[in-house]
Amino acid sequence: MNASAKRASRRIGWLAILTIALIGCADPAGDAGANAAADARPAKVYQWKIITTWPKFLPGVGMSAENLAERLRVMSDGRLDIRVYGAGELVGAFEVFDAVSAGTAEMGHGAAYYWRGKMPIAPLFTTIPFGMTAQEANAWLSYGGGLALWRELYAPFDVVPFPAGNTGVQMAGWFNEEINALEDLAGLKMRIPGLGGEVLERSGGVPVSIPGGEVFTALQTGVIDATEWIGPYNDLALGLYSAGRYYYYPGWHEPGAVLELIVNRQALEALPADLQAMIATAAQAINEDTLSDYTARSVAALETLEREHGVKLRPLPAEVMAKLREASLRVVAEAAGEDELSQRIHDSYTGFLAGVRRYTDLTEKAYLEAR
Amino acid sequence: MNASAKRASRRIGWLAILTIALIGCADPAGDAGANAAADARPAKVYQWKIITTWPKFLPGVGMSAENLAERLRVMSDGRLDIRVYGAGELVGAFEVFDAVSAGTAEMGHGAAYYWRGKMPIAPLFTTIPFGMTAQEANAWLSYGGGLALWRELYAPFDVVPFPAGNTGVQMAGWFNEEINALEDLAGLKMRIPGLGGEVLERSGGVPVSIPGGEVFTALQTGVIDATEWIGPYNDLALGLYSAGRYYYYPGWHEPGAVLELIVNRQALEALPADLQAMIATAAQAINEDTLSDYTARSVAALETLEREHGVKLRPLPAEVMAKLREASLRVVAEAAGEDELSQRIHDSYTGFLAGVRRYTDLTEKAYLEAR
Repeated sequence: MNASAKRASRRIGWLAILTIALIGCADPAGDAGANAAADARPAKVYQWKIITTWPKFLPGVGMSAENLAERLRVMSDGRLDIRVYGAGELVGAFEVFDAVSAGTAEMGHGAAYYWRGKMPIAPLFTTIPFGMTAQEANAWLSYGGGLALWRELYAPFDVVPFPAGNTGVQMAGWFNEEINALEDLAGLKMRIPGLGGEVLERSGGVPVSIPGGEVFTALQTGVIDATEWIGPYNDLALGLYSAGRYYYYPGWHEPGAVLELIVNRQALEALPADLQAMIATAAQAINEDTLSDYTARSVAALETLEREHGVKLRPLPAEVMAKLREASLRVVAEAAGEDELSQRIHDSYTGFLAGVRRYTDLTEKAYLEAR
Repeated sequence: MNASAKRASRRIGWLAILTIALIGCADPAGDAGANAAADARPAKVYQWKIITTWPKFLPGVGMSAENLAERLRVMSDGRLDIRVYGAGELVGAFEVFDAVSAGTAEMGHGAAYYWRGKMPIAPLFTTIPFGMTAQEANAWLSYGGGLALWRELYAPFDVVPFPAGNTGVQMAGWFNEEINALEDLAGLKMRIPGLGGEVLERSGGVPVSIPGGEVFTALQTGVIDATEWIGPYNDLALGLYSAGRYYYYPGWHEPGAVLELIVNRQALEALPADLQAMIATAAQAINEDTLSDYTARSVAALETLEREHGVKLRPLPAEVMAKLREASLRVVAEAAGEDELSQRIHDSYTGFLAGVRRYTDLTEKAYLEAR
């Protein structure tokens, strides 16, 4: 080898080393960088919006989305950066579903029964009069086929639902006259939306539609005789104890309202698998967390209502409950609608309820009666 | 510059390029790699073990840890790689707490009442006779101060607990003689561990301690007259219907057993914040998921037990329940122990129960009675 050949050989040596070094850099899957390879990954940040059907920071239901966004931010190390909008901040409360469907926002938080105008069967995925409790609904959704049907119902709109919160059994509401017998329902003007309102109507009452913001004044001024709301936690915050005389229980019309997280399908499917899994798991954690929040804070709120505000608690009489129950079964059966999917949803819900009801009677109910 | 100097210069040139290349590789935070820097992060893989107090793949309780590990694997994109060990595979069921405390395994799944020998107050974090239901216990733990107290109790052992599963209200158990009155408890040999066993003893019965694996034969051969287990889902799988004659309800002794995820404190704190958050959120999701699993599958199992195996269901008579209730209150009060922390835990539990019980009576109980 002459001097020139030696120099060439030396250059090729350096080139080879440099090439290996650069390949090691550019192709982290190469042998030299095997460890580093598994360690590095592109960390695209997803700036998302979640719009809700609740006033910003409303206790309970209004905090589920805040709680969800914060958990996702920490779990994803900032890769899922979700800004929360209260009702009316970006779109109105009743525009949430359409906005998520259109991709205006990637996520929404609300309740399926708000979309009843579009899908008459939707209330079965929130709560129906004399329907399932929170524990029963969770079981139906996760292990009884309910969630798959819910996804099928929303699929044409490119919206994917997740259960994400529950109020538990609510209260029957605030009444200005005592309800001692069935005839006391006759002509009773009550703010009670949805299927509950239809049941009241068939039982002799007059359901009145009033936006949440006007409920207090309407009750105080006698425009309505009664109103349902949620339970002690929210009712105390709204000050309903100073507008209504009697606080009736139990909430036959909403025995465990399932809240929903809805996600735009394209946005969801564009996420890497780890972020998709975080959304599913965080929604399920929030589902429980919201119910725990309602349960614990309702205890304290109930004490405040009774001790500080002298609220009078009253059970709805058995005769009234029996009438409401009978009307409920008919209203729900008719609400099913006639298309094949709605019928399958109705059959799945009522079939599961028939079985789980017997199990609940032997366990939860028998236990609570003996405790 | 002579030829030798030129060659040296050329070598320095190559060296400089190579050095830049290598630095670029080794220090992604350098200017040249600024974008990549934000996107890349060290992704250390944590190879962990979770040991459980349950037989591998036992339906319900035994699946919670499998479910948890799988969710964490997907959410962390493989960074949290947790292998699940059933009871006896790595350590015995009753050695799980000590092994997690010592760091032999980073995680464990079981139930706090198994550690009663070490901490007599521990059962309050699982379930106690005539105690809270699943919904009530979750509320106490998350929003009533319960979890903070539980962490305080386990802190000296470097163990951090998370609620991670619930069986719901269980069944009272399988009996070979009918229980029609209080005197039928006299001399009754029943497999019932823990506080429930003490309550039975004060009510005239004879609690017998038998490992799970021997329960079936003991009942079938008359060594015991009765046994509690969990509920239809597990009891069907164990075939108890062919050893016991009557299936009694409700499970006064375990009205909602909280399962626990325990994590070694040093191991937990060594994790980056995102992985710590994933563990907390996954545990809460599993907490609900296990209860949903129990609820849904118990419905189907109950139908199988009644229709296929002709199982006879019986409620414990009111007189018997009243006696068991009275004995339970005394046993639990005495179990509190005398140290200051145990007393605070006892006061927190009983104080929350007194309040939540009233709320549950107005909501869940009143609703179930009217449905």
